[in-house]
Amino acid sequence: MRTTVGWQAEPGNGAATTPALRRAPLERRDLRPDDIAVRVDYCGVCHTDLHAVRARGADGGGPDPLVPGHEFTGVVTETGTGVTRFRAGDPVAVGNIVDSCGTCAMCRTGRENFCHAFPTLTYGGTDRVDGSATLGGYSREYVLGERFAYALPAGLDPAAAAPLLCAGITVWEPLRALGAGPGTSVAVAGLGGLGHLAVKFAVALGADTTVISRSPDKAEDARRLGARGFVVSTDPGQLAAARDRFDILVDTVSVPHDLGPYLRLVAVDGTLSHLGHLGPLTLDTLDLLIGRKKLSSAGSGGRTGTAEMLAFCAAHGITADIELLPSARVNEALDRLDRGDVRHRFVLDLSDLDRPGPQAPAAR
Amino acid sequence: MRTTVGWQAEPGNGAATTPALRRAPLERRDLRPDDIAVRVDYCGVCHTDLHAVRARGADGGGPDPLVPGHEFTGVVTETGTGVTRFRAGDPVAVGNIVDSCGTCAMCRTGRENFCHAFPTLTYGGTDRVDGSATLGGYSREYVLGERFAYALPAGLDPAAAAPLLCAGITVWEPLRALGAGPGTSVAVAGLGGLGHLAVKFAVALGADTTVISRSPDKAEDARRLGARGFVVSTDPGQLAAARDRFDILVDTVSVPHDLGPYLRLVAVDGTLSHLGHLGPLTLDTLDLLIGRKKLSSAGSGGRTGTAEMLAFCAAHGITADIELLPSARVNEALDRLDRGDVRHRFVLDLSDLDRPGPQAPAAR
Repeated sequence: MRTTVGWQAEPGNGAATTPALRRAPLERRDLRPDDIAVRVDYCGVCHTDLHAVRARGADGGGPDPLVPGHEFTGVVTETGTGVTRFRAGDPVAVGNIVDSCGTCAMCRTGRENFCHAFPTLTYGGTDRVDGSATLGGYSREYVLGERFAYALPAGLDPAAAAPLLCAGITVWEPLRALGAGPGTSVAVAGLGGLGHLAVKFAVALGADTTVISRSPDKAEDARRLGARGFVVSTDPGQLAAARDRFDILVDTVSVPHDLGPYLRLVAVDGTLSHLGHLGPLTLDTLDLLIGRKKLSSAGSGGRTGTAEMLAFCAAHGITADIELLPSARVNEALDRLDRGDVRHRFVLDLSDLDRPGPQAPAAR
Repeated sequence: MRTTVGWQAEPGNGAATTPALRRAPLERRDLRPDDIAVRVDYCGVCHTDLHAVRARGADGGGPDPLVPGHEFTGVVTETGTGVTRFRAGDPVAVGNIVDSCGTCAMCRTGRENFCHAFPTLTYGGTDRVDGSATLGGYSREYVLGERFAYALPAGLDPAAAAPLLCAGITVWEPLRALGAGPGTSVAVAGLGGLGHLAVKFAVALGADTTVISRSPDKAEDARRLGARGFVVSTDPGQLAAARDRFDILVDTVSVPHDLGPYLRLVAVDGTLSHLGHLGPLTLDTLDLLIGRKKLSSAGSGGRTGTAEMLAFCAAHGITADIELLPSARVNEALDRLDRGDVRHRFVLDLSDLDRPGPQAPAAR
């Protein structure tokens, strides 16, 4: 085994407490023939990480350590004997999937995120070969099969590119599948990590793009990102004026909410893509019936879509707007993410793990 | 006022009892300039009728009489002074909408079923001119503005055509909107009034059509209707084999049910059109996320879609498979519909109302 160091969830005390990660050594497997070792330089902080840390706090701790992080960039440091696509020194990016069955109809068509046997997640998953728990990118090294590493295109800032691998692909896939482009109108609800990238993508794809937000003070930010329209979701007059208007509404609001008001803004035969909050969902069939509207969801991406997105980002110079923090400030990042205090994505700089360091201070 | 006779819900006793309609005289308005009077010959029995009668039983009776029926055919008997599209003697068909605002974006484009001011329903609605309650087609005469009457194409049996106006249009609109046709695969869950028409339409549109049913003994019926495939929904092996298979799944199951098993049969980027059961719906976002599947609903149709459907039915010789009963047996029809004992739609023959008749016997 190889050893590295990362940020690991504290054993839970049975209550959903303030997230607290601590610096800890952790093991990575020795390289299999198709494996690469990656020095993790930058890792985005996703809402999923917050949920996972909190769940770990509430469940009192599982048998395996929890190391979050599933959108990261870095540099290949070593390759297995059978690796063909990468060499040491190559810049790479990794998302939330590190393996899949490889044989089902979904895997055979590059849509491994829909693998019928369920893909292996970058953390909180189970390795398909040795059954070990996968540990995420809040660490200085990651080992994975080369199949799920992507060459990071030249010209993309590695720190700002990290969030493309989860937040980016999660909004890219539905925008592409639903045909966002010239002649379509796209609304994006929420301007967090997912939302601000959805705006950049929709604008670059040529769609007439509008931001929907509770806060009028987000209007300037929306315009800066390229949106032409802005709808304040707490203003009944603005909602009425926007009725039946958007072919695609990308809903990235991260807390449970009534879909009715958003569905009324979707055009006849249009689609609301519900991305921000997963889990059980209740809606009134009539909100779909009136206008024959569609509800969809999406998350992550397969190898084909992810490679396509990275090429698009390189061509259009798209990366995330980030706040870069040394990884020792991870608890502060999670806490501020929880309060919505981020424009638009935290990225951890893992290079501080090369130095013997203190524990991360608690957030409060 | 004009008087006619129809089948009216008994005043409720506060409990959701066995439906009971009684024969009663009722009033129709004098013709306005744009009105026509229709002698109702045949009226289909829709699940909505059953729900409405039962709700009336449970709520103890409202201030207005309840006369169900919103898919009927008949003959024009009289026309208002400004009527241009019909003359006395013309065969016509009427669905579940008899008026709409006429000015909103939906009405201006022939999609009155999505009228922003909500359309006037054929029964249980409120007339936009005089504020009276609308009374449905379980009666010998109906008066409505000519705008929502459709010429019944020659060659369509008037009794078997009646269900086209609600059951038919409700499945026609989503099939058309979702692009059912050659090269697409369509599954239809449930073989009731809506389902059997969905199969006929999908087959005639050129789609590869499959029926999904709990009962293996429906296979022969499905084949007779033109379906090439048949999936028994209680057989895990058959469900697994059909995973991700259908571009469109028309779900006409009329009772609340878990959408998960059906969504797993929908192809990536495909759509489940949920038609049979309206009301609040709970689903797991993951059932949409895995495969980027869409959930939609639909109901009724506007003037453009309804006219298009009737022309298609005339061209392809499509009507409903019905069991025709004298209207005096309406309570039996509702009771058997409740038990699923109908292939595939009851239609009431209202001509018995011309004779002084006894009350309808209770169903049990």
